[in-house]
Amino acid sequence: MQYFSEEHSNEVVKQQYKNCKNLRLKQIMESAINHLHEFIKEVEPSQEEWMYMIEYLTKTGQKCDDKRQEFILLSDVLGISALVDTINNRKTLEATESTVLGPFHVQNAPKREMGENINYDGKGEPAFIFGLVKDTDGNPINGAEIDVWQANEDGFYDIQQPDVQPEMNLRGVFTTIEDGKYWFRSVKPKFYSIPTDGPVGEMIFATGRHPNRPAHLHYIVSAPGYKPVVTHVFVKGSEYLDSDAVFGVKDSLISEYVLVDDESKANELDFKSPYYELEFNFVLEKN
Amino acid sequence: MQYFSEEHSNEVVKQQYKNCKNLRLKQIMESAINHLHEFIKEVEPSQEEWMYMIEYLTKTGQKCDDKRQEFILLSDVLGISALVDTINNRKTLEATESTVLGPFHVQNAPKREMGENINYDGKGEPAFIFGLVKDTDGNPINGAEIDVWQANEDGFYDIQQPDVQPEMNLRGVFTTIEDGKYWFRSVKPKFYSIPTDGPVGEMIFATGRHPNRPAHLHYIVSAPGYKPVVTHVFVKGSEYLDSDAVFGVKDSLISEYVLVDDESKANELDFKSPYYELEFNFVLEKN
Repeated sequence: MQYFSEEHSNEVVKQQYKNCKNLRLKQIMESAINHLHEFIKEVEPSQEEWMYMIEYLTKTGQKCDDKRQEFILLSDVLGISALVDTINNRKTLEATESTVLGPFHVQNAPKREMGENINYDGKGEPAFIFGLVKDTDGNPINGAEIDVWQANEDGFYDIQQPDVQPEMNLRGVFTTIEDGKYWFRSVKPKFYSIPTDGPVGEMIFATGRHPNRPAHLHYIVSAPGYKPVVTHVFVKGSEYLDSDAVFGVKDSLISEYVLVDDESKANELDFKSPYYELEFNFVLEKN
Repeated sequence: MQYFSEEHSNEVVKQQYKNCKNLRLKQIMESAINHLHEFIKEVEPSQEEWMYMIEYLTKTGQKCDDKRQEFILLSDVLGISALVDTINNRKTLEATESTVLGPFHVQNAPKREMGENINYDGKGEPAFIFGLVKDTDGNPINGAEIDVWQANEDGFYDIQQPDVQPEMNLRGVFTTIEDGKYWFRSVKPKFYSIPTDGPVGEMIFATGRHPNRPAHLHYIVSAPGYKPVVTHVFVKGSEYLDSDAVFGVKDSLISEYVLVDDESKANELDFKSPYYELEFNFVLEKN
């Protein structure tokens, strides 16, 4: 038996977990204790700094309600959400890479007809979005579901502005039926800021960071027999691509919105010319 | 510029702190990011485990109010409070060691006359407590303030039971006036449990730990020109000395309550015989 000392602090604490029967929990607690103690020894916080950390974590918990999860946001801006996502979605090189889900997905978004326009508020620059869903051998997947959602021209998702945007604006579920093809109409996304009116915003500004995410579409692409992929497609050339506040960007997920100046094609799409086109192919890995 | 990857995750996140002008804050954030990422890579949490951690921290913040600070309690049971205290109170060998303050100190507790009995609820085994306040050269310190507080026989502090215990039960401030001596009357402390009706209790029980603290008196001893010491004196032989739930025990802070069977001495103290005596000398370091 050993009393607490600076030198052996983590060993003394871990000693109290020796009877933990849940071995996974024991492993997590021991690793957390090691890293927490190493962090404290590295930075040697004053009592005032320690109290600031306590109050910061308390405020973060108290900012959470049924519409806001500030601890997830904190996990996001520290790259923890991106890391947990990456660890849980290690892929073969060919498959589409995953990235963070974010807080704005809606379960059971409406099914859409292929080609439908999901832009219900009429704002923004029209875009025709299309591509294929394939397996890692290059075979098309029919019956694949493409669940898509994005922020509007003002940088907000429909569920952030229930009194402003039409319900289910800029979201929906498309199903591939022929040669793995999908296509629909929407708008070119814009960059936007994460919420900054809580402790996460306080940290972002105190440390000289910015709170912005580069422009992107969100996707969950799934098909029976395949691993679903939760991902984004980022707008090539968007501001903040190199400094996404939540670390979602991966090189393979950046794609170009090409400006098309063609009156007859625009007419077919019920767009004015010029409009944007985005092609992106999804590749799913077998289960 | 580098996009996020499992391999370089912490470097990519730290890159966003390159413009942080507060260098101390930058150092703390970088160390926190390194250790958080190392922890995640070590345990590789599933998405469900990550969500459990998010919800655990959220619940901990939401358990806090003006009377309860669950994040301090979490810091306590992980040995972080003890570590921060130890780091901030490194002492010469001769000086009395510090330990955690705990949540039950009261600012401006009543001044007591030397010898006064601070046991207002009449419960417990009477104890005569005495000793010296000295400097590290062995010289007595007059005018030293001894702020003492303890739990009652049932394991609760007065401020935990405002409707049950007399106000300011088992607490007060004594001032040395002659040869650095102090003496007062109280009761022999009992072990008690930290609050277990929140997330900290959930963790304690899920991991096979116990929530108990060995019996102790709390002290803050201070004098002009000396570094104050926040400490405990533990009861030699108490249960849980070797497994204090908050890691406050240090060998030098354990002292014996000696049973005294002497009618005339007991009469002088207005005690019944036998009663306990505890001698403990405090040694303060010059500023």
